Amino acid sequence: MRNLDLFFFPKSVAVVGASRKPGKVGYELLKNLLKFYKGRVFPVNPSADFILGLRVFRSLGDVPEPVDLVVVVVPAKAVPEVMEEAGKKGIKAAIVISGGFKEVGEEGGKLEKELVSIAKKYGIRFLGPNCQGINNPHKGLCASWPKITKKGPLAIISQSGTVAATFEIWAEKEGVGISKMAALGNKADINEIDLLNYLGSDPDTKAVAMYIEAVSDGRKFMDVATEVTSRKPVVVLKSGRTEAGAKAVASHTGSLAGSYKLYLAAFRKAGIIPVDSIEELYDVTKGLAFLPKPKGNRVQIVTSSGGSGIISTDYVEGLGLRMAEMSDGTKQSLKGELPTYCIIKNPLDLTGDADAERYDVALKELFKDNGIDIVITIFGDPIPRAAEVISKWFNRGKVIIPVYLGGGDVEEIEKRKMHASGIPVYPTPERAVKVVKALWDYTQYLLRTTKN
Amino acid sequence: MRNLDLFFFPKSVAVVGASRKPGKVGYELLKNLLKFYKGRVFPVNPSADFILGLRVFRSLGDVPEPVDLVVVVVPAKAVPEVMEEAGKKGIKAAIVISGGFKEVGEEGGKLEKELVSIAKKYGIRFLGPNCQGINNPHKGLCASWPKITKKGPLAIISQSGTVAATFEIWAEKEGVGISKMAALGNKADINEIDLLNYLGSDPDTKAVAMYIEAVSDGRKFMDVATEVTSRKPVVVLKSGRTEAGAKAVASHTGSLAGSYKLYLAAFRKAGIIPVDSIEELYDVTKGLAFLPKPKGNRVQIVTSSGGSGIISTDYVEGLGLRMAEMSDGTKQSLKGELPTYCIIKNPLDLTGDADAERYDVALKELFKDNGIDIVITIFGDPIPRAAEVISKWFNRGKVIIPVYLGGGDVEEIEKRKMHASGIPVYPTPERAVKVVKALWDYTQYLLRTTKN
Repeated sequence: MRNLDLFFFPKSVAVVGASRKPGKVGYELLKNLLKFYKGRVFPVNPSADFILGLRVFRSLGDVPEPVDLVVVVVPAKAVPEVMEEAGKKGIKAAIVISGGFKEVGEEGGKLEKELVSIAKKYGIRFLGPNCQGINNPHKGLCASWPKITKKGPLAIISQSGTVAATFEIWAEKEGVGISKMAALGNKADINEIDLLNYLGSDPDTKAVAMYIEAVSDGRKFMDVATEVTSRKPVVVLKSGRTEAGAKAVASHTGSLAGSYKLYLAAFRKAGIIPVDSIEELYDVTKGLAFLPKPKGNRVQIVTSSGGSGIISTDYVEGLGLRMAEMSDGTKQSLKGELPTYCIIKNPLDLTGDADAERYDVALKELFKDNGIDIVITIFGDPIPRAAEVISKWFNRGKVIIPVYLGGGDVEEIEKRKMHASGIPVYPTPERAVKVVKALWDYTQYLLRTTKN
Repeated sequence: MRNLDLFFFPKSVAVVGASRKPGKVGYELLKNLLKFYKGRVFPVNPSADFILGLRVFRSLGDVPEPVDLVVVVVPAKAVPEVMEEAGKKGIKAAIVISGGFKEVGEEGGKLEKELVSIAKKYGIRFLGPNCQGINNPHKGLCASWPKITKKGPLAIISQSGTVAATFEIWAEKEGVGISKMAALGNKADINEIDLLNYLGSDPDTKAVAMYIEAVSDGRKFMDVATEVTSRKPVVVLKSGRTEAGAKAVASHTGSLAGSYKLYLAAFRKAGIIPVDSIEELYDVTKGLAFLPKPKGNRVQIVTSSGGSGIISTDYVEGLGLRMAEMSDGTKQSLKGELPTYCIIKNPLDLTGDADAERYDVALKELFKDNGIDIVITIFGDPIPRAAEVISKWFNRGKVIIPVYLGGGDVEEIEKRKMHASGIPVYPTPERAVKVVKALWDYTQYLLRTTKN
């Protein structure tokens, strides 16, 4: 068994602090856990007999079977005792959801140290305290909230439960799905490095997103990250960049944020892709999980919307990518096959009455052109069967990245179909071009490091 | 009657080129028009008897009643003749949806000039050609696609039909709604200046968004914009900023994009708020339509999510706003009223178990503090009744701007409630802080210009 497998693939889970009250974490987490999880679940609460139809145990010691993972939701002061009980029962993995530790000051800090020493004594590894738990849809295990169940290739490690939940909700809504989620909290034991290392060799994870406020051990982080990025993309949103932000980091989890400039340099050295917002964290991770590597950075834009084509062009040039130049042969072929009012340039404007077939014709010619590495395909109208055309050309020697906007109900249907077939699609040209830029940076990093 | 009223408040509309085929513009536009419009609608098509239950006329001349507005969807070559017929019938307003004019080259350019001269001869004003029509949900008039019917305070003038549609779809989905939409196309007659001028005195419009690729007449644009921004915010996304982008502008509608640096300076001088993406165009217009003016730029953050608080802090400082400093009195009161584990700083971290009541208590104290101008209120968990608390404090002497993320189904419900009561809410802290920055810039502009 690999390190941390008990957290993501437990055969049985106990929830200490399970609650009968809807809205309480001890209730919602138990409910989410019961949704799809196939292992045994043991609620623990000294003053309840049944919760959500399950028999409740007075204490961990009363649970008559072995427990792989314990989730702790009791008030801070009661957590050390629970940890002792867990140790005595031979439990080796714990998630401490409860807050009220290092993040609230000196007294909480002491309590946290106590936790660490109990865990050490019994050889328990634990996540938290002050965290939002973990999720592994591939095992049907949502030991967190809100309920997220869609399986997918994106992993998220997050210092913030809310950032993790937001990421998961977007992935769920789009039908993209999650491989693993871990919300770090105070990182008293397990930290982002342990998790990154674990996810690096997780076959269900194709790309790792991280939200971090401070890194636990710079050198070790770099070593692990360098190793993981050689196999899969790692995308990082780092906060606490400004003076005020760094102060806020200290208040949040009692950590030092450090200079963002130094972080950025280190990220680049380790092949990590830095991003600037929660939305970009999601967009780039999604894109890099699914897209093949481009052979170069020459971008051709195909669109039914002239305006969207121009906005894309500004971003392509602004972000340092290159606008491709079609060969004369390609131009001639397109002239022969497209209506006369189409604009055969870059952007290639198929105009507002374009249907899926017209895109197919255009892509057929563009895919023959060796001067083009990446095709940003923008559907700017209700265009049925867009997903079919993109599926046909996806992963056929060039990178194709679709954008869909202004298409109303048809757009929703086609986007869902694309995501269901593992094709990342974006709601605006700006967001798509940023993903292309990140993909190109990562590709160049890989080329550089494998050459050496 | 004001200039352009015939376009937005017609008593009757003819659609020349109405079609029986679903998916065709001539069908979809007619269908959208019939949805809520209370005036008379006359489909015109020489080879159909009934479309969507309406009697069809062979030509405009056959329509037995007066027509206020004609929408033209026939192929380019047939448009001049339709314009002649419209003139003979005494019609004074036309929307030319049809493409195939200046944007396709020399021949199309000639055709466009012909249109202009016919229109002049008969005193017809027209929008387009090569455009996506207009919308006025307050009149139930959607002479465009997709179907957008939600009334609201946001207007959009756009060179791109797709950008306009995207903006409208977002406003419809969020329940924010639209006052007017006009997609400009080639601007052979009516241009962005005419429309901006018109919307400047439209009582249903609280904020104007514009997507432009080129300005028709720089000096006149500045004059009109300066006048309008003294009364309501004008937010502009200008594309064709880079060399490649400018080339693409020329291909799209045959216009010169001009230097973006000069544009930016002009925008600032006229009180226009420049933005960098379609998403930001929507976010900022929405915010400025609803939010009151702040007295200063001192921002207090209140959150249940420590991470979101830190991200916000980085953006506040990064964008040149100021983090507020609570008075000692405020701190003391909060200490007395909030649980001990809350972090009474800026960000004020109410922690993960915060409910709506805790936000209410916090806002009560923060609103008494004269050192705070703007309160960014972040709900980073499923927090029922968030909308109620925000409604209570909205527009009570300070700017309050809510962010909601990571809250699953509860989030969706609460966001909808906020938008329904005229409160703009954002899905990430980054997007909200950008809106605050735009609001502060506009407020300063107003202060500067009214002082002079």
